[in-house]
Amino acid sequence: MFAPVIAIDAMGGDYGPRCIVPASLSLLADLPSLHLALVGQSSLLERLIAEHSSVDRTRLQIVDAEDVIGMAERPAQALRGRSQSSMHVALELVREGRAQACVSAGNTGALMALARQVLKTLPGIDRPAMVTAIPTRANPCLLLDLGANVDCTAEQLQQFALMGSVAAQALGTDRPRVALLNIGIEEIKGNQQVKLAATLLKQTQGLNFIGFIEGDGLYRGEADVVVCDGFVGNVLLKSSEGLAEMVIARVEALFRRSLAARIVGGLALPMLRQLRTELRPSRYNGASFLGLQGIVVKSHGSAGEAGFRSAILRAAEDIQHDLPGHLRERLAQGLGSDNVTASGSRPSN
Amino acid sequence: MFAPVIAIDAMGGDYGPRCIVPASLSLLADLPSLHLALVGQSSLLERLIAEHSSVDRTRLQIVDAEDVIGMAERPAQALRGRSQSSMHVALELVREGRAQACVSAGNTGALMALARQVLKTLPGIDRPAMVTAIPTRANPCLLLDLGANVDCTAEQLQQFALMGSVAAQALGTDRPRVALLNIGIEEIKGNQQVKLAATLLKQTQGLNFIGFIEGDGLYRGEADVVVCDGFVGNVLLKSSEGLAEMVIARVEALFRRSLAARIVGGLALPMLRQLRTELRPSRYNGASFLGLQGIVVKSHGSAGEAGFRSAILRAAEDIQHDLPGHLRERLAQGLGSDNVTASGSRPSN
Repeated sequence: MFAPVIAIDAMGGDYGPRCIVPASLSLLADLPSLHLALVGQSSLLERLIAEHSSVDRTRLQIVDAEDVIGMAERPAQALRGRSQSSMHVALELVREGRAQACVSAGNTGALMALARQVLKTLPGIDRPAMVTAIPTRANPCLLLDLGANVDCTAEQLQQFALMGSVAAQALGTDRPRVALLNIGIEEIKGNQQVKLAATLLKQTQGLNFIGFIEGDGLYRGEADVVVCDGFVGNVLLKSSEGLAEMVIARVEALFRRSLAARIVGGLALPMLRQLRTELRPSRYNGASFLGLQGIVVKSHGSAGEAGFRSAILRAAEDIQHDLPGHLRERLAQGLGSDNVTASGSRPSN
Repeated sequence: MFAPVIAIDAMGGDYGPRCIVPASLSLLADLPSLHLALVGQSSLLERLIAEHSSVDRTRLQIVDAEDVIGMAERPAQALRGRSQSSMHVALELVREGRAQACVSAGNTGALMALARQVLKTLPGIDRPAMVTAIPTRANPCLLLDLGANVDCTAEQLQQFALMGSVAAQALGTDRPRVALLNIGIEEIKGNQQVKLAATLLKQTQGLNFIGFIEGDGLYRGEADVVVCDGFVGNVLLKSSEGLAEMVIARVEALFRRSLAARIVGGLALPMLRQLRTELRPSRYNGASFLGLQGIVVKSHGSAGEAGFRSAILRAAEDIQHDLPGHLRERLAQGLGSDNVTASGSRPSN
């Protein structure tokens, strides 16, 4: 039986290998079907692995890569003559078919730039987008882009919508409702890109486009996929995480105010902890890059062991759902939008 | 003694005069120093007032205005030949000095366009911005723009920063910390406008600019003023309101799970209600337009009586703090930024 391998950039993130190695080894122990390739400075990685007993080395490779891309480096720096960086080597494993997905907690801009360079985008996709599932009052909603693209054209927003729709279908949603994030639901609202993107989305074949949505509509669960540029998506995600932290801290303070409240609080605190985890989706689950010829998952830079484990699990799920395969298939059918055909963005195959 | 008058656009909002008249009359009864001018279809307003007993008519004027600007009309429609709309007449009262502030729950785009036409912006300000106070883990933070300007130049963001700083000072914060909302705190992050705005803000005299901030930093209370374009600000505000609703609904559900929890919940629910009110700032407090030669407060279109009362109170506070006067004074000193002087945005007086 073919066992997919997940390549781990073991050097990235705020905590680096001291967090990533234990997270990887504990998941390896928990999931007997998991195969990992840890990429980084092999002597350091071996030392960290030696601190753990009973590691199944038949399912664990170490791939040496001496260079590390810093968290504050510019993407351009990561592209030039850095073929020995752990991030680059991990992506190469995917390109060569030696791994079926790559997970990194490193520099987001560098990961985006390197992933485009090494893996290339799918035909018909200009730039990849980052996506994660946001909890709502109904089912979780896929939000993209989360920060890989600060400025987006209407055509890019259209591509994101299509990718989000395919991803939601792969995850089991029938005819996903796709909405465009805006500052009002009336047609006259919004900036030029958003208005133009709405026109394109109405013309896109096989897309269940439901129109504009506002931030509160997202949390009411009114759409399965919400599309926006990376600046807006990143602000939405991070402000939501900050607000959720604040609200839960205040509720905890409420629980501590009286004895009776403390007793109930003792019961409720674990539930609040779970709610907190769920409400910080990027920090705990990682985000997938969509639109590449391969699977890349970005774990949050400040993710701890639990967060990094979740990011590996997300990569395993993306492999299982064959997201790039589904996307390629859908893109080969064309967008069915005249404007995009005219501008040449339609895939030529 | 001079008693300031607040002009109320009595016809705007989702609920119109049936909500605005009772809200206005109840606040009039509660605050003996308040003087109001209700602007709208006078026969309808008189009928609604007649439903209330003991209204102090010495502090209440009715100003007739037959036309109403619809909530879905384009701003351009509100500008053309609509001088008899309640919104226009209310703003005229401010321009003529017959009122010292205007409050409307009507069409935001129309209010912005009409306010600029009737009241004009202060010298040195291209476009007004909408601002409200957002709760954080520390002191409330002024966020602007909230949706009046979907696309902003770096110079406009600089003007917003200055206006926010002056407003925070008027509200009692010494040397307010001003930050620019971005998707990272490193200098290389963000789009062109944000990067250029950061350069301008560093050169702005007398401004305590602390650099970039992310959405979670805002809720940690790391700044007193946070500046962004209206698209981003509106998304942040509305998604925050939606998320806060969702979290509080889930916490309430936690309280209902057990008998003991229900008992404590009975104590905690009023506190949760207060938290919910605080976490929906625009809906409950309204937002001030900054940068006009007069005070204009926008109440949320779907605000109920409590929300509209808060918007009137905000207008009364803005009068007390003489926000336009402080802004004019500060703008007369210039921005102290070479770029802006060169581009001619500096006030000529």
